[in-house]
Order: sequence, then C-alpha cells, then structure tokens
Amino acid sequence: MSRRIKLALIPGDGIGPEVVSEAVKVLDAVVRGEDVVIEKTHFSLGAARFLETGDVLTDDDLAAISSHDVILLGAVGGVPGDPRLANANIERGLLLKLRFSLDHYVNLRPSVLFPGVPSPLAAPGDVDFVVVREGTEGPYVGNGGAIRQGTPHEVANEVSVNTAFGVERVVRYAFEAARARSRKKLTLVHKTNVLVFSGSLWQRTVTAVAAEYPEIAVDYLHVDAATIFLVTNPGRFDVIVTDNLFGDILTDLAAAISGGIGLAASGNINPDGRFPSMFEPVHGSAPDIAGMQLADPTAAILSVSLLLDHLGLTDAAARVRDAVTADIAARSESTAAGASRTTANIGDAIVARLGS
Amino acid sequence: MSRRIKLALIPGDGIGPEVVSEAVKVLDAVVRGEDVVIEKTHFSLGAARFLETGDVLTDDDLAAISSHDVILLGAVGGVPGDPRLANANIERGLLLKLRFSLDHYVNLRPSVLFPGVPSPLAAPGDVDFVVVREGTEGPYVGNGGAIRQGTPHEVANEVSVNTAFGVERVVRYAFEAARARSRKKLTLVHKTNVLVFSGSLWQRTVTAVAAEYPEIAVDYLHVDAATIFLVTNPGRFDVIVTDNLFGDILTDLAAAISGGIGLAASGNINPDGRFPSMFEPVHGSAPDIAGMQLADPTAAILSVSLLLDHLGLTDAAARVRDAVTADIAARSESTAAGASRTTANIGDAIVARLGS
Ligand SMILES: CC(C)[C@H](C(=O)O)[C@@H](O)C(=O)O
Ligand SMILES: CC(C)[C@H](C(=O)O)[C@@H](O)C(=O)O
Repeated sequence: MSRRIKLALIPGDGIGPEVVSEAVKVLDAVVRGEDVVIEKTHFSLGAARFLETGDVLTDDDLAAISSHDVILLGAVGGVPGDPRLANANIERGLLLKLRFSLDHYVNLRPSVLFPGVPSPLAAPGDVDFVVVREGTEGPYVGNGGAIRQGTPHEVANEVSVNTAFGVERVVRYAFEAARARSRKKLTLVHKTNVLVFSGSLWQRTVTAVAAEYPEIAVDYLHVDAATIFLVTNPGRFDVIVTDNLFGDILTDLAAAISGGIGLAASGNINPDGRFPSMFEPVHGSAPDIAGMQLADPTAAILSVSLLLDHLGLTDAAARVRDAVTADIAARSESTAAGASRTTANIGDAIVARLGS
Repeated sequence: MSRRIKLALIPGDGIGPEVVSEAVKVLDAVVRGEDVVIEKTHFSLGAARFLETGDVLTDDDLAAISSHDVILLGAVGGVPGDPRLANANIERGLLLKLRFSLDHYVNLRPSVLFPGVPSPLAAPGDVDFVVVREGTEGPYVGNGGAIRQGTPHEVANEVSVNTAFGVERVVRYAFEAARARSRKKLTLVHKTNVLVFSGSLWQRTVTAVAAEYPEIAVDYLHVDAATIFLVTNPGRFDVIVTDNLFGDILTDLAAAISGGIGLAASGNINPDGRFPSMFEPVHGSAPDIAGMQLADPTAAILSVSLLLDHLGLTDAAARVRDAVTADIAARSESTAAGASRTTANIGDAIVARLGS
C-alpha cells in the first residue's frame, strides 16, 4: 500500500500562489516514481483572506492544518501601508502563530552559494552552512506591553523569554545537524556580554551538550562579530545555533551573501513529530510583482526539498536539490543570452531536470 | 585666555594604550595652532585594573571622570576565557556603565568607505552613512533575570525597555544629523512586525518628528532587510536611526563593508552637555596582539576627529579627517610595496599630514 501524505498548502498573498504552484509541480513530479500519494488541502489564508472575512487564523483553521502531516507555505502579507491592514498584524497573527502553535522550535535555514550564482561579496569562497534558529522563544514570544501609550510618558517593553527546556532541545538538534555534516563544527551566536541571563543559559547549555559530542568543534561569536565574519569569511561557518531574533537577522544576511533571498529555503520544524512541520521560502509576498510571473520559485522549490528530507524521502529530496543546482548553473548562460523566464518556465525547467 | 579642555583618558586593556597614545599624539599636534589647552587625566581602568584591585568602576572613578569635559577610551576587556575574569563582566561593569551613567543617549557611528580602502563587497559603490544608535535603553538596560538557574526548569528573561522620552530625543538628534547632511535621508530600522510595542513607539515617534522636517526623506526597514541592503546597496543609506541592539549589530556589519573594524570610530554622546561625551574606536582590546605595535590606531584617531567636532573645534576635526584620508589613500601603494608600519609609524604619518 502506498504511503499517504497529507499536505496542507498555504499559498498566501502576493507571489505566494505563483511560487507554490511551481513548488507543487516539482513535488508531484518527483514523487511520481515513489510509492507515495500526496493528498493536498488548500488553505486560503493571509492578507487577502483577512480583507474578505476579517479572520487571520481561526481555531478551526489551526485545527484543520494540524491534522496534516506537513505544510507548504508561500508568503503572507499585504501591500505595505495598506490602511485596511493597519491594525492587522498578519506576520504575528498568522506566520508566528503557526510557528508557535505547532511548536516549530527549529527554524532551519541552509545557506549554500550554488555554483554560478553571483554573490555581492568579492571573494565569498565556499559558502555552505546552516543556521539552526530557535523558533518558539526569545524576543518573539509576544510578551510585550506599553503604558501611557501615545503620551510623552509612554514606556514600551518587550520581554525575551528563554527556558532551559527550549534552549536545550534546539541546541541538541544543532549538534545532531553538525554531526551529520562533514566539517563537524558548531558556532553559538549570542550576545552574552550584554544579555547576561539569556546568554548565560545558551552558553551553559551549549557547553553541557558539547560534552556528549566530542567530535564536534564548538566556538562562540557575539552576534555583531558574526555579521563581520559573514561578509569577510563565510566559509568559517558550518552549523550556527542561535536565538529567534539573532537567527532572523543572520539568515537574511546569509541569504544575501549566497545569492539573494530568491534562493533561500527554510523549514519550521517540530522534530518531535507531534505537529506538522512547515516549509517556506524566506522571501516575502512581494505584492508589487504579484501575478506577473516574474517571481523566482527556486526558494519555494528548495523548500520542497527540505520538506521531502523531513518526510524521510531523502532520494527525492536530493533529486530536487540536484535539479535546482543544475538549473542554477545553466542560468548564468541563459541570462547572458538575454533570455528571461517566467515563474512557470523555471518550474518546468527544474521538473525537466529531475531525472528519475 | 586659552580655552581649557579637561580630557579623561581611559586607555584600557590590550591594544587600547597603544592606539590611545597615537590618538593623543594627533590630538596634541592638531590643537597646537588653536588657542586651546588640553589637560589630561589618565584613568587606569579595565581588566588589568580589575585583576589588580578587584574594582571595575567605583563611584569615585565615576565622579572623577564626570568632572571632565570629554573622554577618550581605547578598548577594555581581558584575554577571552581568562578564568580570573569569569565572574567580572568588564563590558557591562565598565563600558556600558559609563554609557548609561553619563547618559550617552546617542551612539554615533559613521561609516565611510575611504578612497583606496578595499571592501569585502564586489561593488560597494559610494558608502557614506552614519548610524545613530540609541545608547541608554532597549535590551541593553540590564533588566534581566533568571529563576531556577542551572536546573532543567530555568527561565531566563531579558527586558527591552523603551520610553517616549528616550526614543524621541535620539530620533530628534538623528533628524538634525540628516538635516546637516547633503542627501537629507533618514531610515528607521527596527522589527515592528514582531516587537510590536517598542516598534510602534519608534515608528510613531519617527512619524511625528518627521512632520517637523519636511525636507528629510524618511523610510523604514526591518532589521533583517537592512542587513541585506548593507551588502547589496549600502549607498542607499544616509542616516540610520535605530535601537541599542540593532545598532550594535548593524554598525559592526557597516564597519566590515567599509574597510573593517580597524577604521571604525564612534562617539558616545550626551548632547545635553550635562555629562562628558566619550569617544572610542569600535574595535576591542585584541589582547593577542597587545604591546606589539601591530594595531592600527586609525579608528582611535578618527574618534579624536569626532571628539573635536563635538567640542566645536570643527577645523581641527576636519584636519584630522583629511590627514587620515590622505594616509589611507597612500596605504594601498605602501602595502603593495610590502612596507609594514608600526602603530607609532601610522600615528606619526598622520601627524605629518596634518598641515596647518
Ligand atoms: C515575517 C517575519 C515575522 C519573519 C520573522 O521575523 O521570523 C520573517 O522575517 C522570517 O524570517 O521568516
Ligand atoms: C563590548 C560591547 C558591550 C559593546 C556593545 O555591545 O555595545 C560593543 O560591541 C560595541 O558595539 O561598542
């Protein structure tokens, strides 16, 4: 009997639907050979849905999504400055709510400079690292508040919450990730000299877990210094483990140096398997180019590769990654020849390269 | 009668004393023509002093420093991992304590790619912007704590505190800085979609103050997106205003793309003039090369230029900046010729270029 996989699709806003179409096209093509049946449920969520119904993510939405094995998300967010969205925080109410509710404590973001991809760095060297960003704690918990708002006496606080439970599980995941890689190196990034309580917890946890992984070389960088190395010597990184906010900042920079946000894939993972994990391109909804077939679906397609890896379909995952690598390598030539491809063209080209 | 300026010197640890020597050499030389007498008091503070006496910064130290007009600091911090420093946080106890006690609410960090300086970016373009980093609030306030430390039930929190008073004064300073520059552009960097309370305060404050500065073009970037632009199009920035932590991260990245931390100067400014402002290179104490005359004193010397500007000695400030610019331009040639200069050589060369 075939393995049934229940996939929740959240195409979202802007270019989300276009890139998800191509990602699904690649997914369907790559599993054709496997003994797998993918049952898709389409969820209409995002700014557009909010403007229609006033709902961002209802309990029913959440329950329905939770009953799936895995989620593929395109991008959410309306046109910046749209006054009708002024009081809706789609990012917090939808994206972060999914990450927190589904206990996506690992936000996995690989950075690879594919052959043929131009980098803004003059001498990027070999870029091949992965950021393991904590996804359910830190300054993202939504534990903020304000008094006397709108007056000269306003005080607005934000609390970063960090727990031994939360830090240890993501640190363990990062050590396992480092063990599975060839260079076996892990860098903790934090700001221990300023954020002394959370920093101390992260530092002690890494030190304690490191004792169980003698084969992994461990070092530490302050977040400010880490940004310097990302532009002067990104090759020094193998696995980075860091908190939610530092991970957010470092992964955009990491995407920029390795060819741009159009190539950056990510997984919001619940390693326990109690909740479905969610895969999404790092880029946003880019409403200015929505519906024009101008968006690059590569990041969404690479997110499918991460999704397949997560499901244990590692051969299919590798075939997607290889097809993307081949397509990217061919791009420098076609671009030089002035050829420009639609979103669907790129999806088709990657399908054609899937091999069997 | 000459103007008397009381200068507190805090050379600090590692390479601090070497670079401060050269900075003072340049300062003495440049004011020779002016009707100014500089009275220097030397404060022995830092890791070395802590190891000798057990004190980091006493109330007496602070009172003595406060009675000066201005402060020049080299760098503080001992050898990383020195077990005798394990329980001393020199950064918080000395550097941050000075910034907070002396109400240095503006942390001013210019980024200029001087002609002849190599950048890690392939096509940096014209880099000439200044970061106005808030210096007395945000996640730096030291409002953290932990329960059940060292147990599996530890919770470690850090509170970012932001006030209308604190945000407005630094935002006003940034608008004035933008007005004094030719491009008249200001970018707020924050993470308003996640840190909704502090982000809203920053956003509302910038919007309100902007109304008084119709000639300034204002835009907004999330901190993650800002790191992308810093490596893909740093020329888009003129004045950046941001909170303490984001400013810390962005200014190290900014230094990296504009020739490295060895050239990055900064001012910790109390614009009210109630407390002495403090000028310091952005770099650390680099104990591994201390005392070897290998350190580049340029960042310390450029900090003297900011110090002179702050004192209203704008001609002298410009002469220092011009001498440094000329010296840097000459470096590409001498480096190519294999000449390497000591810390003192560089100071002497800049003095020789001061003109009159
Ligand atoms: C949209 C936003 C809430 C989100 C984040 O900050 O995590 C995004 O920047 C990301 O990195 O996925
Ligand atoms: C040493 C450290 C406390 C300091 C900071 O974080 O502000 C440093 O990184 C800086 O930028 O001056």
